[in-house]
Amino acid sequence: MREPKQDRSRATRQHLLESTIDCLATQGWGATTVSVVAERAGVSRGAAQHHFPMREDLITAALEFMFDSRMAAIREEAVGLPVGAGRTEAVVGRMVEYFTGPLFKAALQVWAAAAADEALRQRVVPLEAKFGRVVHAVTVELLGADDADPAAHRLVQATLDLARGLGLADVLSDDSARRAQIVGQWSVTLDAALQGGVRVAGE
Amino acid sequence: MREPKQDRSRATRQHLLESTIDCLATQGWGATTVSVVAERAGVSRGAAQHHFPMREDLITAALEFMFDSRMAAIREEAVGLPVGAGRTEAVVGRMVEYFTGPLFKAALQVWAAAAADEALRQRVVPLEAKFGRVVHAVTVELLGADDADPAAHRLVQATLDLARGLGLADVLSDDSARRAQIVGQWSVTLDAALQGGVRVAGE
Repeated sequence: MREPKQDRSRATRQHLLESTIDCLATQGWGATTVSVVAERAGVSRGAAQHHFPMREDLITAALEFMFDSRMAAIREEAVGLPVGAGRTEAVVGRMVEYFTGPLFKAALQVWAAAAADEALRQRVVPLEAKFGRVVHAVTVELLGADDADPAAHRLVQATLDLARGLGLADVLSDDSARRAQIVGQWSVTLDAALQGGVRVAGE
Repeated sequence: MREPKQDRSRATRQHLLESTIDCLATQGWGATTVSVVAERAGVSRGAAQHHFPMREDLITAALEFMFDSRMAAIREEAVGLPVGAGRTEAVVGRMVEYFTGPLFKAALQVWAAAAADEALRQRVVPLEAKFGRVVHAVTVELLGADDADPAAHRLVQATLDLARGLGLADVLSDDSARRAQIVGQWSVTLDAALQGGVRVAGE
């Protein structure tokens, strides 16, 4: 009897986390309370509060859960990426897609709120540091870049900073046409640089 | 008698706009009301409401005023930038500095709010489009890039998207040490690409 009950509890929890991201991305920080998320998820307020007594617990758990599932999906889907020509653009495109999706838009709401809320900031900073390390490692792996090479390490970082900037440019209007051109151009430039065409800064 | 009164009125207006940016950047969207800004600026609530009847008027006027003064300052200071070696890094560094300053942090609060507020979004989108065009034109001018060349045009855009991403990475913690490395590496790569070392995407 215990198994099905645990499964139901886990399904409820997951549903709440997904609704949280959806609510943050579309309704914003102010509207994303435990009650609103519970209603959106079709879960009673009591059940939601049993899982997440405080709004901050719900929100950080949602960011972490969704981040882990997006990264797992990116790793799984990577078997379908081209090898050789076109791989760099496919990988850059995939990471940029991640930074323009609902999880980024939800995270943006949390960052904006945390900028003016010290307690929230202290919860979010270590989470962001972890996300940053994992995204970097996944990108290095997919690109097959040599992370021990300072130039390659910084170019991968720059690619992710560029992706974050492209994500921000997509928040208020559909920037996909311009973005495709930027991804294409940067991939050509990055590819040439990773092949050793560009020296390390300062050398 | 008219001149001094107009001057006082203009000084009051400017003081309100500067306080708005400061308040948005440090206290966030929710706390930035006409009353709070008026108090911060040492202006009576009545005088503030005479200049800006609605919060949205105050906030969009502040973004526009501060953007125009930052761009004017960047253009003026450009006479001090190195010519030849080191210019690209100096220009990239200058633009990245703009995207990590208080105006960017204030704008981030407005973008996050506008993502969940259609009326605000409609006011902010045309303003952002104008800002984007001007920042692009200033960067092209300072880099001496050939904007008619598709690769150069896209690489300048990518540089500003990177700067926006670096701005976002600096919102919750001081990212300046990492950022300096990224700016250095990006500048080397951009410089090589603008010198014609990299082909146009798709060719």
